[in-house]
Amino acid sequence: MSKGKKFVEKVTAMEDDFGQWYTDVVKQADLVDYGSVRGTMIIKPYGFALWENIRDELDRQIKETGHSNVSFPLLIPESLLQKEKDHVEGFSPEVAWVTHAGDEKLAEPLVIRPTSEVLFCEYYSNNIHSYRDLPMLYNQWANVVRWEKTTRPFLRSSEFQWQEGHTAHATYEEAAEETEKMLNMYADVCENYLAMPVLKGKKTDKEKFAGAEYTLSIESLMHDGRALQAGTSHHFGTGFAEVFDIRYLDENGDQQLVHQTSWGITTRLIGALIMVHGDNSGLVIPPRIAPTQAMIIPIAQHKEGVLDKAYDLRDQLKDIVRVDIDGSDNMPGWKFNESEMKGYPVRIEIGPKDIEKEQVVLVRRDTGEKEFVPLSELEARLPVLLEEIQQNLFDQAVTHREENTNSVTTLDEFKQTLDEKLGFIKAMWCGDEACEDEIREVTGATSRCIPFEQEQIAETCVCCGKEAKEMVYWGRAY
Amino acid sequence: MSKGKKFVEKVTAMEDDFGQWYTDVVKQADLVDYGSVRGTMIIKPYGFALWENIRDELDRQIKETGHSNVSFPLLIPESLLQKEKDHVEGFSPEVAWVTHAGDEKLAEPLVIRPTSEVLFCEYYSNNIHSYRDLPMLYNQWANVVRWEKTTRPFLRSSEFQWQEGHTAHATYEEAAEETEKMLNMYADVCENYLAMPVLKGKKTDKEKFAGAEYTLSIESLMHDGRALQAGTSHHFGTGFAEVFDIRYLDENGDQQLVHQTSWGITTRLIGALIMVHGDNSGLVIPPRIAPTQAMIIPIAQHKEGVLDKAYDLRDQLKDIVRVDIDGSDNMPGWKFNESEMKGYPVRIEIGPKDIEKEQVVLVRRDTGEKEFVPLSELEARLPVLLEEIQQNLFDQAVTHREENTNSVTTLDEFKQTLDEKLGFIKAMWCGDEACEDEIREVTGATSRCIPFEQEQIAETCVCCGKEAKEMVYWGRAY
Repeated sequence: MSKGKKFVEKVTAMEDDFGQWYTDVVKQADLVDYGSVRGTMIIKPYGFALWENIRDELDRQIKETGHSNVSFPLLIPESLLQKEKDHVEGFSPEVAWVTHAGDEKLAEPLVIRPTSEVLFCEYYSNNIHSYRDLPMLYNQWANVVRWEKTTRPFLRSSEFQWQEGHTAHATYEEAAEETEKMLNMYADVCENYLAMPVLKGKKTDKEKFAGAEYTLSIESLMHDGRALQAGTSHHFGTGFAEVFDIRYLDENGDQQLVHQTSWGITTRLIGALIMVHGDNSGLVIPPRIAPTQAMIIPIAQHKEGVLDKAYDLRDQLKDIVRVDIDGSDNMPGWKFNESEMKGYPVRIEIGPKDIEKEQVVLVRRDTGEKEFVPLSELEARLPVLLEEIQQNLFDQAVTHREENTNSVTTLDEFKQTLDEKLGFIKAMWCGDEACEDEIREVTGATSRCIPFEQEQIAETCVCCGKEAKEMVYWGRAY
Repeated sequence: MSKGKKFVEKVTAMEDDFGQWYTDVVKQADLVDYGSVRGTMIIKPYGFALWENIRDELDRQIKETGHSNVSFPLLIPESLLQKEKDHVEGFSPEVAWVTHAGDEKLAEPLVIRPTSEVLFCEYYSNNIHSYRDLPMLYNQWANVVRWEKTTRPFLRSSEFQWQEGHTAHATYEEAAEETEKMLNMYADVCENYLAMPVLKGKKTDKEKFAGAEYTLSIESLMHDGRALQAGTSHHFGTGFAEVFDIRYLDENGDQQLVHQTSWGITTRLIGALIMVHGDNSGLVIPPRIAPTQAMIIPIAQHKEGVLDKAYDLRDQLKDIVRVDIDGSDNMPGWKFNESEMKGYPVRIEIGPKDIEKEQVVLVRRDTGEKEFVPLSELEARLPVLLEEIQQNLFDQAVTHREENTNSVTTLDEFKQTLDEKLGFIKAMWCGDEACEDEIREVTGATSRCIPFEQEQIAETCVCCGKEAKEMVYWGRAY
């Protein structure tokens, strides 16, 4: 229930300045506040409730597939981080260093985890002995610190919340299966809960995780046509196992290296959610993850019986949907604006006339459509309406992505298409990193992924004209 | 399901060396492993599942009483920490300092939060304007770092997981009510879920939280007679509000300072749980928070039909209790030991004879008692048995505390009693810190709390002989 605020400020129109629109929405919808340390954020109750809903669904699926939650330390000794060459090169420019504790200088500096591969590897090295210990399927929900130069709430922050899975397997194939399984789980949560369609594919070597054999990712298109990497899943092969000496005795009594994976999603998903579904009135939250699915707003609440009836309605509905009521003394118009800003999927209006007619008015956040529903039918109608909204949000996002995905065959066409309107570009690639670099330089786009679903757009690489290996999605990205 | 380990090592007997017994149990019951940074711990799947059960119940109660979860940053600028004098003096000897990020030295050093009062205060200062904004009831589940000299898993670690509530209220009385409400919530979780009786009371000024007006705590007695502080709830009055300028406009339009509280419990509760209920065979977990409430152990599982029947039993019971099955190829005796080490409340044995008689054998972890239960009655019997175990564990702990609590009236008697056998000491106190210091020096005991339930043991202070103000619980503590 909101109380006290006297007006809702308007947000900048997204057509005028998408970046400012985003910043306005995250602030005015009460999702975050800025922390006092550069690039950090305070996730406020509404923002955190969103995260809890995403987390709880994913956590359920992670456990259902046999993974166990654990808690590993925040701090990593310098010597441990430096064991794997690619990994330390990838992360050391952005780690925070702990050098002192109390009054004393530490004998060895520590880094705050930017990710926890090396900690899990050290543990696996000590705890995996036999094929009977495998697979080892661990996950943790944790905070990590990466000292980024430019930051934005949810999208890129110095500290963020995430989930990091770390697994060890007997064979390359089992690890490959796990890598894909977890990517599919992320895609499921994004598509079926966040109503956010994603492309599934493999990162190019240039864009893969520091230390991985390969990285899979899901990629999504934001409202402004920029791409966003929404989750990644890495296959490490035996790279880390060799460095950290993680071996097991197989059934024949021979020593073997384990094959590892790691995979993660972060609070960044909230940023994606905002930029996929939001509009100029504020957030639009998909019903399945909405902390409040329906907000009751009494009309003419000073009239006898209105407030009582509204509270009765809340009690009646509270086991059916996540419902709240705005019984504050703000004007209904203010409450409507606030309800839109927060992106509650449905607004339920009830006033003296409705009470007389034994009905309520349901207003959809996604389309603005109104419908009059008899009180006797409300309990049946509301869950159905929420599912309709969920589906519509997903369909809209798919349509938006389709309308903003273009196939190109030359670099000129590539650049011209993006300069006209941002979106995904589909283009063939020879597999050479030099072409990737040149494409970036010329068009500002990076390779997003080599999609599992391939198409043969042309015979030759969009950049060098040599024989093409595969079709790649490109885009300017967050 | 356990697999692979070939034998269960014996733990040191608690009568021989309680500290070693504790260390053996946390390791052998697979609760934790040591992190590579001194004093840090890796909470393994079984330990973390325990924490999740405690957390989920408390989180439910925290939300039910109108509090919202949030996420505040990990790092605190030095200047912010130093704003409140007592607070910084209390914590600065044990904070970890971040001085560099990437290659650069930071303009201002940062500390990793040892607790987050100053961050919440800064936020409240910016976000509380009117009486309509109050009360502000926030909570977060987070990790904190305190660089302790001597560490032990769960009991005192350099980093630990906890929950910290931070609230702001319009009046002193409302804040006092909140302080007590949250202490009662902790007591409820300890007594009704962890089956761990607690004393509720107020800390002396010497023992209160750095920056608090007063601190309430719950205190529990471990198996070895040492006391353990299991949770604290602090009333800050307007102390922080003055320093951080946290004011609101009251209904008359006058500026007022807010009154604040904070309260927390930590992974330490797992340590308490171990030391209250554990025995020389390992852990004993109270059913209400046990990740596995009943472990099915097939007997002669190589015989036809036994394993199938055992798995059927698991499927039949899994919606009634948290049940698992040990279908590994270890010997039943090994499985019994493992089941005892892990402290599963009930072991369900099923073998060929039981199948013939259409029964199972239930073995209680707390008493070792066996009972033969017809399969047709098992679904009804099991939940009742789990409640009996829950109650018995609580009753046993109450009895242990009563048998190890003594009233004394002189310092000699105080010392002699403790030297003979550790436990709680009840003694009168004049309220003077000098006496508190002398008692500690002579007896090794600190004041645990001034209990809400007072008794008049004597007229005079146990130390100085002057007029006594109140009865205090004392003890040697963890």
